[in-house]
Amino acid sequence: MRISRGRNGAPSEERGPTFSGRVWADPVLPGADGVVVNDVFFEPGARTNWHTHEVGQVLLVLAGEGWVQSRDGTGFPLTAGDTAHIPAGEEHWHGASPGSYLLHRAVSIGQTGWLEAVSDDDYRAADAGG
Amino acid sequence: MRISRGRNGAPSEERGPTFSGRVWADPVLPGADGVVVNDVFFEPGARTNWHTHEVGQVLLVLAGEGWVQSRDGTGFPLTAGDTAHIPAGEEHWHGASPGSYLLHRAVSIGQTGWLEAVSDDDYRAADAGG
Repeated sequence: MRISRGRNGAPSEERGPTFSGRVWADPVLPGADGVVVNDVFFEPGARTNWHTHEVGQVLLVLAGEGWVQSRDGTGFPLTAGDTAHIPAGEEHWHGASPGSYLLHRAVSIGQTGWLEAVSDDDYRAADAGG
Repeated sequence: MRISRGRNGAPSEERGPTFSGRVWADPVLPGADGVVVNDVFFEPGARTNWHTHEVGQVLLVLAGEGWVQSRDGTGFPLTAGDTAHIPAGEEHWHGASPGSYLLHRAVSIGQTGWLEAVSDDDYRAADAGG
């Protein structure tokens, strides 16, 4: 059993090649039993690469605005208070909208499989509701 | 991919035999791929039975004060902003302190195995830091 009280005390970490744009991802609770909890801040326009979670992922939107999109075109705008669930193995991305940062807490379960970056066309398609 | 925006619109549901005291548990996202998200409100003194989660559980404390305790005696007081992780298969309980309600969001992964009620002695032991 583990507990995290507020921030973890470690310096915030800027994330690299599996994201586009500037993204800060702080572990709330490091992985154990395949369960990882991170707080992730995306600057406007920043987003994850396409990726999958072996068991799934729950996103709790804390502040700002953004999107989550699946490869099949389904997706949702995200705003503070929203809770999203991504099923096992579903190829998806999430990130900030062009005009707002996004802060979410992510509970990621099982291995993460990273894929290619989200193209500007795919990113703009989310903005158009695609 | 699923999303929940604020409450789910269904009437709040009071929970029964696997809890002591009055407990209200509202699904934020019903189970899929073994991942369930619930907001759970415990009146002062209320608590879960002892139980396990097949893969684990993450508790995000939204308001109030309470405890989470394992069968081996390890445990933590809970207060708003805390995040707790219970490993796969660990027998534990969580609930409100005697003098405060507790509201937490729970991400429960895999089957839940319900056990017996938490005795008043075990509950008071948490208060003593046991």
